[in-house]
Amino acid sequence: MFKIGVDLGGTNIAIGLLNEDNEIIQKDSIPTDAHRENDLIIEDIANLCKKIMADSNICEEDISSIGIGSPGTCNISEGIIINAFNLGFENLNLKEELNKYFANMRVFVGNDADVAAYGECKMGSGKGCSSVVMITLGTGLGGGVIIDNKIINGSYNCGGEMGHMTLSVGGKKCSCGRNGCWEVYSSATGLINMGVDKCAKDKDSQLYKYFEENGKLNGKVIFDLAKAGDETSLSVLDEYIMYLSEGVSSMINLLEPEVFIIGGGISGQGDYLLEPLKIEVNKRVFGGSNSTEIKIATLGNDAGIIGAAMLEEMF
Amino acid sequence: MFKIGVDLGGTNIAIGLLNEDNEIIQKDSIPTDAHRENDLIIEDIANLCKKIMADSNICEEDISSIGIGSPGTCNISEGIIINAFNLGFENLNLKEELNKYFANMRVFVGNDADVAAYGECKMGSGKGCSSVVMITLGTGLGGGVIIDNKIINGSYNCGGEMGHMTLSVGGKKCSCGRNGCWEVYSSATGLINMGVDKCAKDKDSQLYKYFEENGKLNGKVIFDLAKAGDETSLSVLDEYIMYLSEGVSSMINLLEPEVFIIGGGISGQGDYLLEPLKIEVNKRVFGGSNSTEIKIATLGNDAGIIGAAMLEEMF
Repeated sequence: MFKIGVDLGGTNIAIGLLNEDNEIIQKDSIPTDAHRENDLIIEDIANLCKKIMADSNICEEDISSIGIGSPGTCNISEGIIINAFNLGFENLNLKEELNKYFANMRVFVGNDADVAAYGECKMGSGKGCSSVVMITLGTGLGGGVIIDNKIINGSYNCGGEMGHMTLSVGGKKCSCGRNGCWEVYSSATGLINMGVDKCAKDKDSQLYKYFEENGKLNGKVIFDLAKAGDETSLSVLDEYIMYLSEGVSSMINLLEPEVFIIGGGISGQGDYLLEPLKIEVNKRVFGGSNSTEIKIATLGNDAGIIGAAMLEEMF
Repeated sequence: MFKIGVDLGGTNIAIGLLNEDNEIIQKDSIPTDAHRENDLIIEDIANLCKKIMADSNICEEDISSIGIGSPGTCNISEGIIINAFNLGFENLNLKEELNKYFANMRVFVGNDADVAAYGECKMGSGKGCSSVVMITLGTGLGGGVIIDNKIINGSYNCGGEMGHMTLSVGGKKCSCGRNGCWEVYSSATGLINMGVDKCAKDKDSQLYKYFEENGKLNGKVIFDLAKAGDETSLSVLDEYIMYLSEGVSSMINLLEPEVFIIGGGISGQGDYLLEPLKIEVNKRVFGGSNSTEIKIATLGNDAGIIGAAMLEEMF
């Protein structure tokens, strides 16, 4: 049997067809055009699923399920998007809706960060493991927890918000309205803010020079200048990695997954991020001995499609 | 069938016999005398199990399993205590050892805090729930996580150390050697330290008066003086509850259990602790809506016996 994974984003809808080895054998995408009526978005998803099947000469009977990764809060087993504000979805029974196009098809819907973590657990850096925590370091800090091959998304589908665990009581302001959330320190935005703060205090630095010329910083320039030896950039990364290690070791102290996976834009730095992070985490894990492997995500944007398609394995 | 639960502590070994309704129908205890040889402690456990069976006219064939809650790191399903330093146990196969006294008996061994959380989940404040987080506010901050009726103790049996999640990076020194652990702020020790700090700055307070007369504080006196209207004590509790709410809401944001249970000495304050805590947690839960019930533990010291006896239900 084949299966379909849908990565339903605010900008694009990417859909992939997986074979029995859970490899993507066909992939396509269309713009989401999120401001449309729900029905039109759903119709586009259904039509793109049909197109992909046709392109691969696969018929509906060969598909075991359609899995969707969506922003927001989802009831995985019932295929319901409880709310996804940026898509205008509220209590949308996507299983029922897709069953209008594909009668009796099994449909599962998970939160996009959870689903990406599930994909990495099943086919990426966590392959072969049953217990994985993944964080995605981008504009925000998202992530997912997989224990015993199941997504842990809370008793009422609102769990997994690790970016909004407190890392520093009364600390820097978070976009959620609270202070000191992990996201404030460990997202790419957090890195950039640390860079801006530090370079303003060291106007001889290369980092300040860049900031002055461009009026802003980005994550990559901080890494690039650190690699080129700029002391201020190195000190920004030291601070960034220290905070990141506090969050990662907290999660290991609580959940001790087999693998802790780092994804998102910043994870593109690979070993340059990973090696010092491991050292800092190992200092902080309770009892002095860390058995959890820390790895960089490997599936990139495909994690969402693969994880969505594989949701059926949770049931 | 009946089952036996053993609460193996550093001071006492408490053992209970549970009927089919999971009620303790017989209970007894002996001193642990932890500095003895392992064999002697195990012999005492076995003999007390036998005594309890005899006292209840129950024979070995009527017992479905023996469950043990032990300090330290345990492999639940294999019945092994990996290490329990204060008992001098290291890689002790308690299942094998007890099988010398009770041939073929099923034996399960869990960490004491996990097992107490499991007991509260099954028969206490979490009865009827499959997903519970419990913290114990005593000298330290221990706790356990139950998801889908299973103890989550990590891939290598070292998880569940929620007292050593970071609540405040670079914050107050913790006994574990790190800074800013949740335990530093929310244990009874943390409360007392907050009291000592605050009353030293307000020498007109009733709290300082108590401190001066007795040379020390305890948790109860802080609550008692707060109830009597002492402003300093009230301010200590405000700070204490604020920190506690940061930790509790972090756990809810991550795991969103059906019930979050507060146990340990400080939980004896009941609603006086619980009501302001709920208000502070509700302010902090991500998305502005908290579905997790927060409750005080109800089983007291029996949680360990009941949870240990019921470990068999995990398999």
